[in-house]
Amino acid sequence: MSERIDLGPQGFIYPMPMTLVGADLPDRPNFMPVAWINRVQMNPPRLACGLNKHHATNAGIRDHGEFGVSIPSIDMVEATDWCGLVSANRAADKTAPFTVVRGTLAHAPMIAECPIALECRVVELFDLGTHELFIADIVATWTQPQYLDEDGKPDVLKMQPFVLTMPDNRYWSVGDYLGPAWSIGRDFQPPVALEE
Amino acid sequence: MSERIDLGPQGFIYPMPMTLVGADLPDRPNFMPVAWINRVQMNPPRLACGLNKHHATNAGIRDHGEFGVSIPSIDMVEATDWCGLVSANRAADKTAPFTVVRGTLAHAPMIAECPIALECRVVELFDLGTHELFIADIVATWTQPQYLDEDGKPDVLKMQPFVLTMPDNRYWSVGDYLGPAWSIGRDFQPPVALEE
Repeated sequence: MSERIDLGPQGFIYPMPMTLVGADLPDRPNFMPVAWINRVQMNPPRLACGLNKHHATNAGIRDHGEFGVSIPSIDMVEATDWCGLVSANRAADKTAPFTVVRGTLAHAPMIAECPIALECRVVELFDLGTHELFIADIVATWTQPQYLDEDGKPDVLKMQPFVLTMPDNRYWSVGDYLGPAWSIGRDFQPPVALEE
Repeated sequence: MSERIDLGPQGFIYPMPMTLVGADLPDRPNFMPVAWINRVQMNPPRLACGLNKHHATNAGIRDHGEFGVSIPSIDMVEATDWCGLVSANRAADKTAPFTVVRGTLAHAPMIAECPIALECRVVELFDLGTHELFIADIVATWTQPQYLDEDGKPDVLKMQPFVLTMPDNRYWSVGDYLGPAWSIGRDFQPPVALEE
């Protein structure tokens, strides 16, 4: 086995999901690309999202306690990336590439072109230092019938989400199906340690 | 555009990264498959991880304030899944498929066979209800030279991590390279709204 090396504290999780977080700003809705987001609890269903305090999105979420999480497909990669290159703080209208839709919450803007989108209500806000961690209940999961599999569940092959790797800063599609979770390991036999 | 439907609050982020969280239990180290994990802050580098309180792993992390996050490759999918099917609370030895390694922290067990692994020190623990959210500083990022690209950064094509989708419960590889982040959207031109 070759040498183990320490790259330092700036390690990442591989890979990270790409989303567009929607918030209502004073003048208009806004969408920000966010990869630092994930589920954190099963019941009630909750997610967590870490966002730098400087973003206009943070103020919008703080103002209303609500936000949307839209998951773009690979044909939206340029539009998604563009949203991370321009700033709502400098008057960019990040709704321009998209059709804004809403569900049951007043201030959780979502993107109609995205195959799936979550409506979220903030339950906790933790100050981490440079970033705020928003903990939110998921209150609805919006999709369309063409993105569902035969069991009525969202189908990653139909939604075609994409992922981000850092610090190389690259986008990737989802690849091959490897097997069923909580199942493919059933027949796995770990090596038996020999008694000395 | 077809009908929008609400699948209810059990929505997920697509896709989620698969990791093995390592913690020291009273009798031995333990590894638990965890997909609800991600970075949440750039500086100091921090991640967040939501774990059901019933897990033996939670007690181990609480006891020592340290844990490891090892990212398995696709050739470890069966071993990873097996770790989620057996329970340390029922005496399963989840170190059996792996070689345990440590870095600079006393209680952050990692897996030598994983292409990359993070050493983490807990800085906050938030009680979400059924789950605990561990916020941790990343103190080291262990890898091996064969997993780095020509710029010295971890290369997803060499590491071959995999992802999870829920509630369909399926594992997937990472697919095709789509383009550079904070770059591919530079030439994107959003449609110009016509003044009425």
